[in-house]
Amino acid sequence: MRTTSVGVFKIATKGPGDVSGLMSLIGSGAVDPDSILAILGKTEGNGGVNDFTREYAVAALCTALAPKLSLTPHAVEQRIAFVMSGGTEGVLSPHITVFTRQEIQQRPAGLSGKRLSIGMAQTRDFLPEELGRSAQITETAEAVKGAMADAGITDTADVHFVQIKCPLLTSERVEAAAARGSKTATTSAYSSMAYSRGASALGVAVALGEIAPDIRDEDVLRRYDLFSKVASTSSGIELMHNVVIVLGNSEGSASEFEIGHAVMSDAIDAPAVISALTSVGLGVAPQVAANRELVNIFAKAEASPDGAVRGFRHTMLEDTDISATRHARAAVGGLIAGLAGTGAVYVSGGAEHQGPAGGGPVAVIARLSG
Amino acid sequence: MRTTSVGVFKIATKGPGDVSGLMSLIGSGAVDPDSILAILGKTEGNGGVNDFTREYAVAALCTALAPKLSLTPHAVEQRIAFVMSGGTEGVLSPHITVFTRQEIQQRPAGLSGKRLSIGMAQTRDFLPEELGRSAQITETAEAVKGAMADAGITDTADVHFVQIKCPLLTSERVEAAAARGSKTATTSAYSSMAYSRGASALGVAVALGEIAPDIRDEDVLRRYDLFSKVASTSSGIELMHNVVIVLGNSEGSASEFEIGHAVMSDAIDAPAVISALTSVGLGVAPQVAANRELVNIFAKAEASPDGAVRGFRHTMLEDTDISATRHARAAVGGLIAGLAGTGAVYVSGGAEHQGPAGGGPVAVIARLSG
Amino acid sequence: MRTTSVGVFKIATKGPGDVSGLMSLIGSGAVDPDSILAILGKTEGNGGVNDFTREYAVAALCTALAPKLSLTPHAVEQRIAFVMSGGTEGVLSPHITVFTRQEIQQRPAGLSGKRLSIGMAQTRDFLPEELGRSAQITETAEAVKGAMADAGITDTADVHFVQIKCPLLTSERVEAAAARGSKTATTSAYSSMAYSRGASALGVAVALGEIAPDIRDEDVLRRYDLFSKVASTSSGIELMHNVVIVLGNSEGSASEFEIGHAVMSDAIDAPAVISALTSVGLGVAPQVAANRELVNIFAKAEASPDGAVRGFRHTMLEDTDISATRHARAAVGGLIAGLAGTGAVYVSGGAEHQGPAGGGPVAVIARLSG
Amino acid sequence: MRTTSVGVFKIATKGPGDVSGLMSLIGSGAVDPDSILAILGKTEGNGGVNDFTREYAVAALCTALAPKLSLTPHAVEQRIAFVMSGGTEGVLSPHITVFTRQEIQQRPAGLSGKRLSIGMAQTRDFLPEELGRSAQITETAEAVKGAMADAGITDTADVHFVQIKCPLLTSERVEAAAARGSKTATTSAYSSMAYSRGASALGVAVALGEIAPDIRDEDVLRRYDLFSKVASTSSGIELMHNVVIVLGNSEGSASEFEIGHAVMSDAIDAPAVISALTSVGLGVAPQVAANRELVNIFAKAEASPDGAVRGFRHTMLEDTDISATRHARAAVGGLIAGLAGTGAVYVSGGAEHQGPAGGGPVAVIARLSG
Repeated sequence: MRTTSVGVFKIATKGPGDVSGLMSLIGSGAVDPDSILAILGKTEGNGGVNDFTREYAVAALCTALAPKLSLTPHAVEQRIAFVMSGGTEGVLSPHITVFTRQEIQQRPAGLSGKRLSIGMAQTRDFLPEELGRSAQITETAEAVKGAMADAGITDTADVHFVQIKCPLLTSERVEAAAARGSKTATTSAYSSMAYSRGASALGVAVALGEIAPDIRDEDVLRRYDLFSKVASTSSGIELMHNVVIVLGNSEGSASEFEIGHAVMSDAIDAPAVISALTSVGLGVAPQVAANRELVNIFAKAEASPDGAVRGFRHTMLEDTDISATRHARAAVGGLIAGLAGTGAVYVSGGAEHQGPAGGGPVAVIARLSG
Repeated sequence: MRTTSVGVFKIATKGPGDVSGLMSLIGSGAVDPDSILAILGKTEGNGGVNDFTREYAVAALCTALAPKLSLTPHAVEQRIAFVMSGGTEGVLSPHITVFTRQEIQQRPAGLSGKRLSIGMAQTRDFLPEELGRSAQITETAEAVKGAMADAGITDTADVHFVQIKCPLLTSERVEAAAARGSKTATTSAYSSMAYSRGASALGVAVALGEIAPDIRDEDVLRRYDLFSKVASTSSGIELMHNVVIVLGNSEGSASEFEIGHAVMSDAIDAPAVISALTSVGLGVAPQVAANRELVNIFAKAEASPDGAVRGFRHTMLEDTDISATRHARAAVGGLIAGLAGTGAVYVSGGAEHQGPAGGGPVAVIARLSG
Repeated sequence: MRTTSVGVFKIATKGPGDVSGLMSLIGSGAVDPDSILAILGKTEGNGGVNDFTREYAVAALCTALAPKLSLTPHAVEQRIAFVMSGGTEGVLSPHITVFTRQEIQQRPAGLSGKRLSIGMAQTRDFLPEELGRSAQITETAEAVKGAMADAGITDTADVHFVQIKCPLLTSERVEAAAARGSKTATTSAYSSMAYSRGASALGVAVALGEIAPDIRDEDVLRRYDLFSKVASTSSGIELMHNVVIVLGNSEGSASEFEIGHAVMSDAIDAPAVISALTSVGLGVAPQVAANRELVNIFAKAEASPDGAVRGFRHTMLEDTDISATRHARAAVGGLIAGLAGTGAVYVSGGAEHQGPAGGGPVAVIARLSG
Repeated sequence: MRTTSVGVFKIATKGPGDVSGLMSLIGSGAVDPDSILAILGKTEGNGGVNDFTREYAVAALCTALAPKLSLTPHAVEQRIAFVMSGGTEGVLSPHITVFTRQEIQQRPAGLSGKRLSIGMAQTRDFLPEELGRSAQITETAEAVKGAMADAGITDTADVHFVQIKCPLLTSERVEAAAARGSKTATTSAYSSMAYSRGASALGVAVALGEIAPDIRDEDVLRRYDLFSKVASTSSGIELMHNVVIVLGNSEGSASEFEIGHAVMSDAIDAPAVISALTSVGLGVAPQVAANRELVNIFAKAEASPDGAVRGFRHTMLEDTDISATRHARAAVGGLIAGLAGTGAVYVSGGAEHQGPAGGGPVAVIARLSG
């Protein structure tokens, strides 16, 4: 098994086009641009179909990184996995998290236990009519296994967060399928985001053995008892395949970070957030552990589809003025920020098959010092 | 000292016009309509200028209560203090809290300690040019003392929540002042809501000795270091005076409820919420105390005016799509609901001089059983 | 044939709960409350699922009319057809149009030509699973014929506007159907509004011979080449049947009004609006005809489903911040108000099968004087 | 007088980052990148403070044009005037209009009359406390005269549209002023956009002799009877000076275009739009003139500050869900698109002192062929 050193850098941004923080870290030598594997960001758009802050942030980062990597901006986008989650409602604060990985000779002598590891893989391009259906599920499951191998993780219990970037449908794609006589899962761009996220999450669940592999097309967005406890999926217009990023702990990693997770059973599940913090040696803010420091929290949020949280009606799904995903991010973001002590956390909306209905996975990365 | 029995009934609503829950309680004899003193509600509008769910809820309640009280709907509105706070963002759940008060002969033998008491008072009508200025502050302070006396509370430390309903300016009112040669604090209806809320909160702070009484007009909405830790103020178009409702604990009360409070220093101050819960013998959800039960939490929320929470930028004040008050309610509501274990809590926006800038008061009512 | 006198009163409102204008007209004797057949209104909510201004307006009107009609408010709602269309985006101005009808002995001697007539009918209650499907289409078609007869109209060419109020699905209704083993056309409340509006409009088209009667369930919301040129349908939560109001011209009417219509082929079809105005002797504002006066315009608007208007992309369907129906009402309302010379026009959203895709019917009522 | 050839290219965009249309025209030789003087665009954001589609569009254009001009992206932004107006509500369609200018030897023999000319100038950088006040007015007036000279226009009657890009205040800028002991016109970023637009428009009015030059600071955003009939101003965060673009007709121009204008007295002033079309030989769509073709329409829209249009109440200013500028663009855009026959028109919000209160300028560019 190869040995890697994984770095995690959380950088506040002043706007979706702000790359100054990362450029400073590169300028100071703190970040080697060649080692950047993935960048997950929260941008301040609406998180919906017309949220251009995501692609703007990616464009700005690619343009800025291109000379550092001696690549064209387009080639940078192919090389690094960019996952921008739109929507910093409430106290959520725009930021990016940069993951780096470098191979090293061997683990330092004093290092014990499994440490944060990261691996990536991707599927083939999908046909529009495959999105939200079993083809996407099966191919994603394969890619998850590939990303685990890339991360040097063999035990599925060591996988704590699987971030997936997946396609969505556009009018052109729907028509292209129709022209071939194929019908897509939905004709709405907005709905297709949910289908693609849902099928991708089910792919994670299949890969990790959380559910049986015999998912039917009609189970997607219906059988909400089928879910992954560690999947986090985001759909974007810019690709037609799934990009899979596995985050877990591995003995092959020499990083100073550790990751753990829990699953929120609903949007107000404070004990689950506390459990995720505790799993990596942290507690409720303010942090007191001298040798452990919170780096970031990654969570998915959604409005419970049945319209209630613990028996009390919520109004997120009936609000024609604010989309339910914005409501859910604001509320879950408020809870997690309160327990974490910071609004610079990654809370993303659209948690179909990612955690139970109305809930979602929550993963925590801590830095171990000393 | 007279002895009162105070009742608190939290009733979920199916919509702003839904009065069925209260009518059921009246029908079953659980609530005597003659004893209703105040109704505080969360309705599912946007909480802004064009939020008609508040007046719709009041109209529906007045129409329904009129025959029970042998009054016209208009007379019901004069008799009972209705405070409707619009905005059930995120996990917040629409509901009303009905406060009743009845005089009783004497305290039951076994009852010990101070118990929840409620008192009301009101100021004279204000001139438009008095709103948001010292006249409103001074008169409000007097009314707070009157409401304390009405509640049988002598020690300001026993006051845990002061809800005030205060006026706002309209074009007509601004013009009326101008016709007399007087200039109002602002000419904008929207801004006047903040001025009126702010001056009213300062009045509470003066009455309770939280700040010195020498407030200048120019301190309102500027000196945010001046604030009350228990004030919660809402402005409405339907009145020109302040209605003050004091909630506290008194030895003259024989109710089965107790109230406590804390003040959130910012929008993610989880320890303050926990402290408020603890002050009445409760803890973080799920509740385990066998003899104590959460009834409701009353809190004010706002986007911190400096654009950041603990050093991290928030985007609430720059969002042209969602008003900052909606963002703030969603986030603080998510945190409080998580710690309380329910979204049926009263979180209201617009916290000028109610708690420190970006923070706000949080009060908890618990029912003691056995 | 009986002879009727039909009155049309357009009344501006100061808010959704404002009934003062109608009460004044009743007080002055201008409107006989017993003669009120239908009230169509534009209220200032968002026009979506959580637009409570519609039910608030109806509640306020029913409460105010109850003593005038010696009925309970509930009985008033059963007797008069209330159609409230939410959404006064842009220059649209909140108002109600009150239609009255009285039988009279005979037409005045000098009166010539067909004049405005109104007729009503309603279907049986639908099962949730019938909404948006052929049952709703067929029953609606029958009701349209009944309403024509009630209006004294025999020639379908004399029908110029058919307003329908139709049900929508709620979670409870979807579950009720599921409990019986039946699947509804959609499980989303928001989508069900479109299904119900669409099927109702197809019912009008069938009744008037605009399309062949053999509509299949799968044609609803798909075969947009099937449409009525005079249907205007609105869904509401408060009923489970369709209420049909037919407006047309009849020799049996002695009213001083005339109605005409045209169909907008897209959202910017100015010539169609002008044609509708011309059809009743009016022109583009400012009006010059001495003996003809615009009373109101009734139109339906929608974002063209193909995402473009005359080859240019629109962004209404991708906007996560503002619903497409709000966009469409604002734009079409702006055009019609410009040509009519007033924003107090009835432009309603959601034009599925009401006019061609992206377009919609536009009807004009003029008052003839002298 | 020098002779110039001015080109106008309207190019539809598929998104704020889409530069493919312009790149095609450059690739085919239709547009010489060196000749590009200004690019005015409509982007599909919300047009408010957090509308990042504007800066994204500029960044994308600068990045794409940089290699064509052998400049850095930053230098491109300094060289070409980019004015991006956010908000394509309703039927408005995202597009850019590229203005080119080249000096030529002499006018073609057969060319008669004045033709479209374009000129530019800019002010010095402003201090934050100068925005929205007389300094900005005076400096802008000077720059307008400079831009007229640059356009070869001597008669103010030949000026038909003056587009200005002006700064806004940020928290940093407000604080910088405060640190120097200076108070800005407002502390709100959103409000400062209006102040800056208003003062800039007053500068145009002064330069063109539309109003007397003695404007006081307190007249800005108050004396709405003071306005320019041709000013169109947009504020942006990226600059601290005003950029002035004058569009008019000049005998020194050999272009195939002509420009004219009218002023809408309110948001539903259809005759003004028709008058602007007529002034360049066009009519209401569909166009029939064989030798004249509509290129684009440039207009400003706003919600009338008194809350009514021709006596009927509008609800734009009280809507907490949708900003008034979005409402106004949607409505005026609908009217203009209807009369023009296309939604690809430039309708921009925020018309303070640009046309009368509630109205705004409307300019039309036509191409003359043959």
